[in-house]
Amino acid sequence: MTYPHAALYAEVQHFYARQMSLLDAVKLEGYAGTFTEDAEFGHTPGREPARTRAGIVRDLVAFHRKFEDDPQQRRHMFTMVDIDPQDDGSVVSTCYALITTTRPGQAPEVVRTCVVHDVLVRGEDGGLLNRSRHVDHDGHGAAA
Amino acid sequence: MTYPHAALYAEVQHFYARQMSLLDAVKLEGYAGTFTEDAEFGHTPGREPARTRAGIVRDLVAFHRKFEDDPQQRRHMFTMVDIDPQDDGSVVSTCYALITTTRPGQAPEVVRTCVVHDVLVRGEDGGLLNRSRHVDHDGHGAAA
Amino acid sequence: MTYPHAALYAEVQHFYARQMSLLDAVKLEGYAGTFTEDAEFGHTPGREPARTRAGIVRDLVAFHRKFEDDPQQRRHMFTMVDIDPQDDGSVVSTCYALITTTRPGQAPEVVRTCVVHDVLVRGEDGGLLNRSRHVDHDGHGAAA
Repeated sequence: MTYPHAALYAEVQHFYARQMSLLDAVKLEGYAGTFTEDAEFGHTPGREPARTRAGIVRDLVAFHRKFEDDPQQRRHMFTMVDIDPQDDGSVVSTCYALITTTRPGQAPEVVRTCVVHDVLVRGEDGGLLNRSRHVDHDGHGAAA
Repeated sequence: MTYPHAALYAEVQHFYARQMSLLDAVKLEGYAGTFTEDAEFGHTPGREPARTRAGIVRDLVAFHRKFEDDPQQRRHMFTMVDIDPQDDGSVVSTCYALITTTRPGQAPEVVRTCVVHDVLVRGEDGGLLNRSRHVDHDGHGAAA
Repeated sequence: MTYPHAALYAEVQHFYARQMSLLDAVKLEGYAGTFTEDAEFGHTPGREPARTRAGIVRDLVAFHRKFEDDPQQRRHMFTMVDIDPQDDGSVVSTCYALITTTRPGQAPEVVRTCVVHDVLVRGEDGGLLNRSRHVDHDGHGAAA
């Protein structure tokens, strides 16, 4: 019996690697471009989810303001990807995120572990895009 | 030259993601169901390995008792999967595990790094199951 | 639309798992053997990159001397692999590295997060080898 999702599994992992390196490089427009035009992105419990690409950029600009006086390199490491392809061609994908941050000259700090709940769809060029992302933070409950 | 194990490699990663999310959700019967009926599971050095699904559940119920008065979200992140398919159809699989725990309102703690030694086989439905798992804890030697 | 790089993606992940377990086991000749004869390996900012397999072994022997009086189990966990196959058959591959270390009887410490920049090529047996590796350390700038 052959595992039917091998190509999709690798594709989702690869998509996540490219997507999150954009966020970690604070390329916020590039990161928003990995979502559909009408996507919803809830990354923090108790904070209203951002909607549309423009809304995601605005939200992330505001969110990153707190790092302006405290420069640091954040890393989002996604592991334990679990995909569930749907009949409509979308992919429900769930994974763990380990988030670290490193301030200049210091050792890394593990900031948070999360469970990421995505719905992925195909864009016009056939590549993957997030139609939605909701992130649960361990120790802090679920995102809005 | 084409890499012959691509489908199996993705399948094992996917299997681990589903399997360990059951353990992290403390769905102990579900986790034990990812082992064969007669499996052996040694997760802690100096502790007798559990045997059979029922034995694995009993062992994990006892093991998780220590978290009753100390609620926390544990996460097992498996990375660096190395598979070695055997002639009999089983798969020797080795990976690293990073184990974190997060108590309510606190930052995550990295509890342990491990090397996981699995033998995986096909169940009746063709999916993967652990015939055995033995876990070495870094800094504490090998599991029984 | 089918993702064309699935087999290569899994192969690179598998290659990394085997390669880095050699380094973590301090099998320095084995690790150097995952590079081409004429490879370049820059692992630490401000330190001259090592060149050739023999040079990589010499460099790592010197580097590991500091652990002689401070035994510890290091682990290199590569995640978020991003591959970019080139027209000449080589593969530009970038990933995150989470480096932990565990001293006997102690909890693990997250030593460093890095971005690993590899160029992979095919060896005579068709398997992957590093033609080069340069590692950027978060919080410490780029490798030489």
